[in-house]
Amino acid sequence: MDRSGIITFLTDFGLSDAYTAMMKGVVLSINRNADIIDITHNIRFGSVYQGAGILKDAYSYFPEGTVHVAVVDPGVGSSRRLIAAKAAGHFFVGPDNGILWPIIKDAPEAEMVELTEKRFFLPDITSTFHGRDIFAPVAAHISLGIEISRLGHPITDPEKLIMPLPYIKDGILKGEIIRVDNFGNLITNITLADLSSFLGDKTPVIQIGEYKISGISDTYSGNDKDKLMALINSSNHLEIAVNLGRASEYIGMVTDQIPGTCVEVY
Amino acid sequence: MDRSGIITFLTDFGLSDAYTAMMKGVVLSINRNADIIDITHNIRFGSVYQGAGILKDAYSYFPEGTVHVAVVDPGVGSSRRLIAAKAAGHFFVGPDNGILWPIIKDAPEAEMVELTEKRFFLPDITSTFHGRDIFAPVAAHISLGIEISRLGHPITDPEKLIMPLPYIKDGILKGEIIRVDNFGNLITNITLADLSSFLGDKTPVIQIGEYKISGISDTYSGNDKDKLMALINSSNHLEIAVNLGRASEYIGMVTDQIPGTCVEVY
Amino acid sequence: MDRSGIITFLTDFGLSDAYTAMMKGVVLSINRNADIIDITHNIRFGSVYQGAGILKDAYSYFPEGTVHVAVVDPGVGSSRRLIAAKAAGHFFVGPDNGILWPIIKDAPEAEMVELTEKRFFLPDITSTFHGRDIFAPVAAHISLGIEISRLGHPITDPEKLIMPLPYIKDGILKGEIIRVDNFGNLITNITLADLSSFLGDKTPVIQIGEYKISGISDTYSGNDKDKLMALINSSNHLEIAVNLGRASEYIGMVTDQIPGTCVEVY
Repeated sequence: MDRSGIITFLTDFGLSDAYTAMMKGVVLSINRNADIIDITHNIRFGSVYQGAGILKDAYSYFPEGTVHVAVVDPGVGSSRRLIAAKAAGHFFVGPDNGILWPIIKDAPEAEMVELTEKRFFLPDITSTFHGRDIFAPVAAHISLGIEISRLGHPITDPEKLIMPLPYIKDGILKGEIIRVDNFGNLITNITLADLSSFLGDKTPVIQIGEYKISGISDTYSGNDKDKLMALINSSNHLEIAVNLGRASEYIGMVTDQIPGTCVEVY
Repeated sequence: MDRSGIITFLTDFGLSDAYTAMMKGVVLSINRNADIIDITHNIRFGSVYQGAGILKDAYSYFPEGTVHVAVVDPGVGSSRRLIAAKAAGHFFVGPDNGILWPIIKDAPEAEMVELTEKRFFLPDITSTFHGRDIFAPVAAHISLGIEISRLGHPITDPEKLIMPLPYIKDGILKGEIIRVDNFGNLITNITLADLSSFLGDKTPVIQIGEYKISGISDTYSGNDKDKLMALINSSNHLEIAVNLGRASEYIGMVTDQIPGTCVEVY
Repeated sequence: MDRSGIITFLTDFGLSDAYTAMMKGVVLSINRNADIIDITHNIRFGSVYQGAGILKDAYSYFPEGTVHVAVVDPGVGSSRRLIAAKAAGHFFVGPDNGILWPIIKDAPEAEMVELTEKRFFLPDITSTFHGRDIFAPVAAHISLGIEISRLGHPITDPEKLIMPLPYIKDGILKGEIIRVDNFGNLITNITLADLSSFLGDKTPVIQIGEYKISGISDTYSGNDKDKLMALINSSNHLEIAVNLGRASEYIGMVTDQIPGTCVEVY
């Protein structure tokens, strides 16, 4: 597979420290022509689940042969493995803590290696910043064309991520909120495919807590300004929103406590 | 007009979700050599007025032939038009909701089109994310040299933005605060040109609420540390500031409520 | 020295205004092929000390010949000098207020000039935004290969930065917290070298306020979840942290008040 020359970063490092810049400097010191794009550095500290979901949503919009570096790594320095993967036409580098699982599980052809070949790392490896010392240089080498098989030994048992999936019980499709976005929209784990097979031709009721929404809207803007609505979002997930408002505030919960909240469709 | 190969983004998407990365991935999938620069992604949700002002301030510092994508689009999915414009030596892409108006109104030679040619869009268009599905690919195609006349049919009636302009009444020049910047500076809609024609040789008094400022300072640092001052800012607007302090806190108002506050000069 | 073609920015401008985009536009208008990397724009307003520390930590990870622009400049428009420096294989541009001092003091071969040659500035210089009008164009010209000796006259007396250094008193190594990072880790001014020469073979006790930590950990993850630990961080400084937690919250102080807090080792 050709390399696109693009390297993306997704971390929980925030934007106030030198950490992301150090990683970018390391990449550019190895591959001066790499183009670096930030997916986000604002993953909630240590939230592998949130990082995994955003990476899964974003990666496929990049050209094939792009290298995606995902560093949400609360176990840095522990015995957790460091891995690289080739899957779905892209390359991935990160800790083996489940952050790549949503992509790997849908890519039966995925190749994975544990990173052990130190000549592709920085010469000095700290125990606290593998993003800079290992993941960034490995990503740069992949972007230059190194095959991942040269980076270490193959593995077939990557860590899985516990991902709550929607299920049907007593005739009700039960899912949950997985994320609140910047607009206060509530993104659920129920996909368009889940809905279609459950509903057939029926017009659904969507219930969250005491709130009931009738039907699925096509757009935000077709709705009343102060009413909850449900729609299929741009990543094909069921989403609860308020036109020109914030659903997260509408339901009166603290944003950080919303993920995990039950959503029922019937 | 030659293309610079640069594409800028201005949105209200924030930096925590996958949305801006998706747009960048789409651009790079069409024009691998595009260089992407963020103007800001922190426009207040749905504030077309704030976005329009920041875009107007920033765009002309980029090389001619740059493509600027402005996605503050609370009406996404409604019947509002999507447009591209060629004006003042630059290209612009965004919703037809007034966000481009401050630039277009000063560019009598501007060419504008409604975006209708779907071959320049992504194959699947969602109703909730035209930034990714339409604006990003259209911008990438423009950056490759496509003429905007090929993107749709010409229009001559773009949406205007209601922009409060300063006026003179009873011998007083009356304007208002349009924005509070990161330093707490209060930026008004009164320009250097407005001031010069109103004042002539006179030393002005600038009044905001109960506070009166005498004269216009040349720099922040020439003033007392704990005193309001007025100066002409780097975009030629009258600005109220505090040396080494925050004018927004000095006047004791909640930052979000400051825009619209009256400023008088006499 | 060859130029890498990379220009980094470190400022206290935040990410919500047009200011950083204007600087990038100016750079690209002069050197279309420059690659721009943000170190951070979230330095605390006017904190030359914080900016200096982050720049010092980050710059050496970039390729030699990179130009680093540091604009934490509360004295903009005052008589403070504007300087460029060539030091440690890199170029630096910024106000002469101490922000470059930690780098310059360790580079005896450093060359410095006061920026006076206006042909390398923008044609119109405002008194409030030298980042855009002077530092950005000068950086772009350096990235194109201009020697810094052509930018102005040599200086040998750059402003120093008052940097508290650790010292030994009554058999105790006394330092202080210099920064709290995004993870709530407390970074001290005590380096690995300071510790080694003080401790020899001894296992240290690290004390901050009422809290005592015994020994230096190798990693975050080897420790109990709810206990303060000390370790040597990825920039070789003594750091106080909590595995999967925030040391800044653990010690019960307001984050902004933590820098300057005394740390003792014995």
